[in-house]
Amino acid sequence: MLPWKTIIRLTPDTRRAVYLQIADDITAEISSGRVTLGTKLPSSRLLAEQLQLNRKTVQLAYDELLSQGWIEIIPYKGTFVKKNLPILKPKPLGFIRPSSPKSPTTLAVKTHQINDGTPDYRIAPVTALYKTARFLTESKLSKSVLTGSHFAGHVSLRQNLAKYLNDTRALTPTANDLIITRGSQMSIFLACSVILSPGDRVIVGHLNYESANETIRYLGGQLVPVKVTRHGLDIDQIESIIVTQKIKAIYISPHHHYPTTVTMPIEHRLKLLALAQHHGFYILEDDYDYDYHYAGSPILPIASIDQGQQVIYIGSFSKILAPSIRMGYMYAHPDIISRCITIRKLIDRRGDPIIEKSLSILIEDGDIQRSIKKAVKIYRDRRDLFCKTLQHKFSDQVSFETPDGGMAVWVKFHNLKVKTLKETTLKQHLHLDVDTYSEEDKCRLGFASLNEDEIDHHLTVLQDSIHWLKHKNT
Amino acid sequence: MLPWKTIIRLTPDTRRAVYLQIADDITAEISSGRVTLGTKLPSSRLLAEQLQLNRKTVQLAYDELLSQGWIEIIPYKGTFVKKNLPILKPKPLGFIRPSSPKSPTTLAVKTHQINDGTPDYRIAPVTALYKTARFLTESKLSKSVLTGSHFAGHVSLRQNLAKYLNDTRALTPTANDLIITRGSQMSIFLACSVILSPGDRVIVGHLNYESANETIRYLGGQLVPVKVTRHGLDIDQIESIIVTQKIKAIYISPHHHYPTTVTMPIEHRLKLLALAQHHGFYILEDDYDYDYHYAGSPILPIASIDQGQQVIYIGSFSKILAPSIRMGYMYAHPDIISRCITIRKLIDRRGDPIIEKSLSILIEDGDIQRSIKKAVKIYRDRRDLFCKTLQHKFSDQVSFETPDGGMAVWVKFHNLKVKTLKETTLKQHLHLDVDTYSEEDKCRLGFASLNEDEIDHHLTVLQDSIHWLKHKNT
Repeated sequence: MLPWKTIIRLTPDTRRAVYLQIADDITAEISSGRVTLGTKLPSSRLLAEQLQLNRKTVQLAYDELLSQGWIEIIPYKGTFVKKNLPILKPKPLGFIRPSSPKSPTTLAVKTHQINDGTPDYRIAPVTALYKTARFLTESKLSKSVLTGSHFAGHVSLRQNLAKYLNDTRALTPTANDLIITRGSQMSIFLACSVILSPGDRVIVGHLNYESANETIRYLGGQLVPVKVTRHGLDIDQIESIIVTQKIKAIYISPHHHYPTTVTMPIEHRLKLLALAQHHGFYILEDDYDYDYHYAGSPILPIASIDQGQQVIYIGSFSKILAPSIRMGYMYAHPDIISRCITIRKLIDRRGDPIIEKSLSILIEDGDIQRSIKKAVKIYRDRRDLFCKTLQHKFSDQVSFETPDGGMAVWVKFHNLKVKTLKETTLKQHLHLDVDTYSEEDKCRLGFASLNEDEIDHHLTVLQDSIHWLKHKNT
Repeated sequence: MLPWKTIIRLTPDTRRAVYLQIADDITAEISSGRVTLGTKLPSSRLLAEQLQLNRKTVQLAYDELLSQGWIEIIPYKGTFVKKNLPILKPKPLGFIRPSSPKSPTTLAVKTHQINDGTPDYRIAPVTALYKTARFLTESKLSKSVLTGSHFAGHVSLRQNLAKYLNDTRALTPTANDLIITRGSQMSIFLACSVILSPGDRVIVGHLNYESANETIRYLGGQLVPVKVTRHGLDIDQIESIIVTQKIKAIYISPHHHYPTTVTMPIEHRLKLLALAQHHGFYILEDDYDYDYHYAGSPILPIASIDQGQQVIYIGSFSKILAPSIRMGYMYAHPDIISRCITIRKLIDRRGDPIIEKSLSILIEDGDIQRSIKKAVKIYRDRRDLFCKTLQHKFSDQVSFETPDGGMAVWVKFHNLKVKTLKETTLKQHLHLDVDTYSEEDKCRLGFASLNEDEIDHHLTVLQDSIHWLKHKNT
């Protein structure tokens, strides 16, 4: 066996987590060729003993290597360095300024990312959530939490959520007007399943949140696209459509429109509601971004005027916690909620009562509210820095407007496909994890998950890549 | 304010959890009329201070009272004893043997339960799961776990699951043949969504798992029921149906049939697979109960012979953890898995990577396997005791056969509707939380979640109730 104890040199003082240090050292050995492809790694138990670490730390390191594609698990045999690993030897582009004093290994392994607008999990109360969950399971928990949940979601969560929605959005649901879902996507799926019959027409923005379009199409609905102005879906075009066509519903994200980030002003909201009431169509109000408005107070949802008649109000906690913690809700007329519950039972029966109850406690204790307040302050600063830096570095390369809220900036690149840019930045270890729109020259650049250093670093890489591309083409 | 500190008398030595003691004392005060209906309760913070307890303990007590319907939360006002509370004054039936020396309060509050076959959460590794989850979130977790999950489920869980299925069931999936779902129900929903078109015929048992029937009907399928013998679905009847009708799929739970608990023998499995291959229909093999077989080794799944061609294999971890922790999986041909992923993205995008990764670690460390082994031993003993007691106490009142596995006994009551029995036992604070079948004289009585004392107590209450009903009717 290789002398892993001497290969892996842990530095207790560094800020890099121990398991990442282990992963770094192993990839360095692989990259350098000192550990050959196909080598069997020691079991996590053995390596943990040698390094005198908790076995879970070594497992995390192996998992990191696994997810990065360096190693593979062969059942009954063990963990091996992949045989067919193309050893990356990144060549910095000629004119790129000298890289900061990082080890080549770190550079080879660590890929930075700009996504299309996710929260920063580092400031989210994720640990508080699982801490509470563990507390609940350890506290001689009665069956009432573990087995006693309701198909619509834990009753205490719905009660606390009702109060929370009243405090923050002037909505007035009772617990029975609410269903807890696995995030906005499930709310959209359930709502569309309930209200749509095959062939029903649904007005959507062009552009729109693609998963909403796909859901509507999957459930037999027919998309009726209208253009998106700086005030959201074009209200005049909507008005002219509904006099000639029977419309079943309209899907909007008024706060802020996805992907373009614009806010629908209050007068458009009132007019849309009046049209819905007059012509009898539903408004699917997907307000995923309500909590993150930086230009004064957010505008109250249409549902706060309608209160559960024409409007199906959809919200999410995944932006507050992490995109992967799927927690959302729907507020609608009790008839719709009850039909959603019927379908929900066929899909996955119900949510996880421990996590639901934990979230309920975090809301009741005000943890969620404080976390949002803190995040809004941080994200506002990040938006300002991001937009300032964009303006400074890219003034003639991109067009954008500073968004009133949310987690991303809607950017149009001049004479440049985002796809081409993606390929170039990736060579600089910056992954542009974004969808492209229209002529492929537009995308959302997320700022919320990036701290000051990351904004500076990532936008510098972006700038260098654009320069290089322009230079190459002239 | 009421002198809550003197009302609530905590006994540190008792085995009853502190929060339940608080709930007991408060309900005792309400029942006795000393605390009047509509009384405002102190805030959990205040009461916690007075009792010198953690606030979460008081919150758990309030939650218990809330879920039992004693109190209500009025937004902006506080927590109140319900105004319209019908104060229960339970009258013991005349000839019932003297109740054990419990306080009347406890009797009034605590309702025992026989369900239709759920695991015992007290022996399930639920705490281990959330402990691991919390560890993961606290360990300077890289984005890879929190944001890097796959729509089909965390890659390490799928790899460990593949190995686990190979070890326990001789299945040979790769990670790409698997999708992690929110329990068996989501697997059924996804599989039916993929394979069924409106009007397609699906053979099911009569009787069958009702949620499967509902899902098939909801998705436009047409049920073709066949009778259930002591060997599961009648194979001769199936054979005669498929020569006259085009059949798209058959849904079975071979191990053990729901609700009747019978096991499909190997020769019927082979024959069914041969028919499926010859006539080109799918087998939906819902093997939710595989791990809990007490009569020798379990019979290998049909999927272990077919290996991802005609058979869609569905399994669950919810029986190992708790019914409310929705974790299941599906093993099928990669084409079907990939179509399931497409639909899954529209339903809720993906699972929770922290819980998925935690489960993966528990499988890798063998915790899940040890937990099953332990549970099988305990449940087998409980089955034996339960059936012996049934035989002893009810020999002329019920018919049943000792099941080869699972968590419940299929019972037919002689000349007695289960519904009537339910009403009677409820007055004795025993909730028969079971569905009824056929002429309403059959149900599943779950033994797995009951310890020795509970089996003795609950079946005694059941016996007393039957005696009383027979006595009343003569």
